[in-house]
Amino acid sequence: MTGTHDEDAAHPANGLDEVVHQRVRLGILTITHEARRVEFGYLRTQLELTAGNLSKHLSVLEEAGLIEVEKGYEGRRGRTWITLTALGAKALADEIGRLKKLIARVEDR
Amino acid sequence: MTGTHDEDAAHPANGLDEVVHQRVRLGILTITHEARRVEFGYLRTQLELTAGNLSKHLSVLEEAGLIEVEKGYEGRRGRTWITLTALGAKALADEIGRLKKLIARVEDR
Repeated sequence: MTGTHDEDAAHPANGLDEVVHQRVRLGILTITHEARRVEFGYLRTQLELTAGNLSKHLSVLEEAGLIEVEKGYEGRRGRTWITLTALGAKALADEIGRLKKLIARVEDR
Repeated sequence: MTGTHDEDAAHPANGLDEVVHQRVRLGILTITHEARRVEFGYLRTQLELTAGNLSKHLSVLEEAGLIEVEKGYEGRRGRTWITLTALGAKALADEIGRLKKLIARVEDR
């Protein structure tokens, strides 16, 4: 991550934040954005991940404050629910903005 | 990477290929697409990378057949030139297509 330089002068790829841009995490943010509150198993199916791999990426997003992870029960079964935070929604919007700039540069040629 | 499933049914984040999607590599492909043939030092400056980090990502792209790396001289100075291959141009176009699908899903909400 670079962060501090002049974004307009730099190549749009520099502005991409690995926390958000990474394929699986971008998927998690997109799905929680679509569904607001999603169950762990749903994310796992949608993104075709192992539980371990999904957990690892959820931790990165939770530590960055982009999602909230809530553990509870549905009947007797343990369930984990994931919600996008306001910061997460902002980070996803920023990523989309940068991707659009990058796409525009590719398509201008 | 998933690769074999029905792309239309799956979430667009599944179709993203880590070789191309990774932030630095997406930057390299975008810049070589813009400039056709670029010098190592130019890429390094544009993407604000150390030589070692850039080399590592160039190797991944070269092994995947997405770029060609050519070593030569400019006067007495060693130079490394990077060119996008036809396969690389195709891979970048595929990535852009998938990103657009993903952006459309985010913006539909």
